[in-house]
Amino acid sequence: MQGNNKKIFIQEVVTRDGFQNERDFVDTDKKIELINQLSQCGYSKIEVTSFTSPKAIPALRDAEQVMMGITRHSSIEYTVLVPNMRGAERALSCDADEANLVMSTSESHNLSNLKMTREASFHALSEVIKEVQSTRTAINVSLSTAFGCPMEGDISLETVLSWAERFVEQGARGITLCDTTGMAYPTQVAEVVAKFKERFGDLQLTVHLHNTRGMALSNALAAIEAGANRFDSSLGGLGGCPYAPGATGNVSTEDLVHMLELMGYRTGIDLEQILKASAQLPALVHHDVPSQILKAGRRLDLHDVPNSVKEHLGK
Amino acid sequence: MQGNNKKIFIQEVVTRDGFQNERDFVDTDKKIELINQLSQCGYSKIEVTSFTSPKAIPALRDAEQVMMGITRHSSIEYTVLVPNMRGAERALSCDADEANLVMSTSESHNLSNLKMTREASFHALSEVIKEVQSTRTAINVSLSTAFGCPMEGDISLETVLSWAERFVEQGARGITLCDTTGMAYPTQVAEVVAKFKERFGDLQLTVHLHNTRGMALSNALAAIEAGANRFDSSLGGLGGCPYAPGATGNVSTEDLVHMLELMGYRTGIDLEQILKASAQLPALVHHDVPSQILKAGRRLDLHDVPNSVKEHLGK
Repeated sequence: MQGNNKKIFIQEVVTRDGFQNERDFVDTDKKIELINQLSQCGYSKIEVTSFTSPKAIPALRDAEQVMMGITRHSSIEYTVLVPNMRGAERALSCDADEANLVMSTSESHNLSNLKMTREASFHALSEVIKEVQSTRTAINVSLSTAFGCPMEGDISLETVLSWAERFVEQGARGITLCDTTGMAYPTQVAEVVAKFKERFGDLQLTVHLHNTRGMALSNALAAIEAGANRFDSSLGGLGGCPYAPGATGNVSTEDLVHMLELMGYRTGIDLEQILKASAQLPALVHHDVPSQILKAGRRLDLHDVPNSVKEHLGK
Repeated sequence: MQGNNKKIFIQEVVTRDGFQNERDFVDTDKKIELINQLSQCGYSKIEVTSFTSPKAIPALRDAEQVMMGITRHSSIEYTVLVPNMRGAERALSCDADEANLVMSTSESHNLSNLKMTREASFHALSEVIKEVQSTRTAINVSLSTAFGCPMEGDISLETVLSWAERFVEQGARGITLCDTTGMAYPTQVAEVVAKFKERFGDLQLTVHLHNTRGMALSNALAAIEAGANRFDSSLGGLGGCPYAPGATGNVSTEDLVHMLELMGYRTGIDLEQILKASAQLPALVHHDVPSQILKAGRRLDLHDVPNSVKEHLGK
């Protein structure tokens, strides 16, 4: 369980997964400012935005402006969510470092969210991969509901792995296993990650956790023990779940980093700086955010000893 | 990490640790009703109330009435918090199964909370132990700030273990290591529990966790892997922390049980029934409670497939 200085890669998703469900539009310059700030904090990857239809996700209707407006840091990959060929064209026009394609491993969830069967999604995304492969932009595929679907329940491990395999055969350089609605639990995560590593070896694996049922940090530790070293996380824990109103959303970056660093893992993240960035979120989204560390402080952010106690202590 | 049917003992503290900081008084008959309901749910122990001065903790000013009013279940130990000799007398007059004495392993925290030095607390509690030992009431000692003090920072493991040892020598049959303000982290918990087990063998050890920094469930798993099998937890996650306003409090019973049962541990708790009890809490305390499972449901509490999707699926 000891981190022993092992490197864990942290990928920030707050301006995409976090903002996409916000009711109030976050101004474009505020988004750019936040991403520029986060670019100084040691992330390995930042998911900037989504090239979805502005009608479907008005919160991210400024995708091009944001991508073109940010100052890129050479050590960070700037990835964008790409749902289809139109999105891919937009991503390429902005010279994204990575296109993050997405489909669900659950037929019901894919039909609900993407309005097509998984096979139809696969074929459409395969066309996107062909288009993107001739460019410098890398391909990652995010597989939703990999740890359970809120309508179908458990998705078999073989189903999850075989969708991953089909995309790897197409040329994806990375796969993200998404616990879209926070159904994952530690022993399951350990099994899924171990089997994934067994089949795909050193292929870039990202684990995308939600804290809907309080288990995100436990799941992260289970994933690491099984061989994972790369996580999506969202500053402030922003990003909800339509199936669990009021529940917490994506695992909070600061909560994850705070725990991992205490345990001796090396994230490279400047916790103090991301806490400053996180403290700005409530003003941007006009509500409180679920992050625990933002409210409670780091464990050794100490409180003053009362004066009456100081006398007793002879201080 | 697999539970393999290992028994984990769950001790409910909501009516003591949960209610003690509530602004609004929970009516005595409502407390009794809740405890009677929880007595049907498979707990190994229930901390009913605190025999503290009614002026210090008015929320629990009905301690005797509650203890005398509940219907006890033969398989459950009914414990009460006892701060001093007066409290012990009151606990004995109610025939409590256990007196839970409390002091802090941090000098500053003990002076702040209990207004005396640790040595003074130890001597006062030793007198209590002598008084109680001739009765059928068992003695447990809860050691606060065992994983860190919000004013002093880390408390050395040797300090924690030596306070435990002094109480065990006095006749305590159990020790609770309390993460009073949520400063514990998994590798630390594993070390503390392992060293405790090494020194005290099969002495009853309870781990009392707070979720202030989001790590309570991860800490519980670390404690179990190091040999712990007994936890305090609070229904709904009720119970805050004066050092972290707005942060979550005690680890939520339903969140802990939900995770442990999924992993193959055997808590004996009827999760469906405690969720019904938890659902009543917001009406009792007049605010939302931090429990995640209460909001999100169990992982396989599935949602309906939309009609448009049903057509596609041919259902």
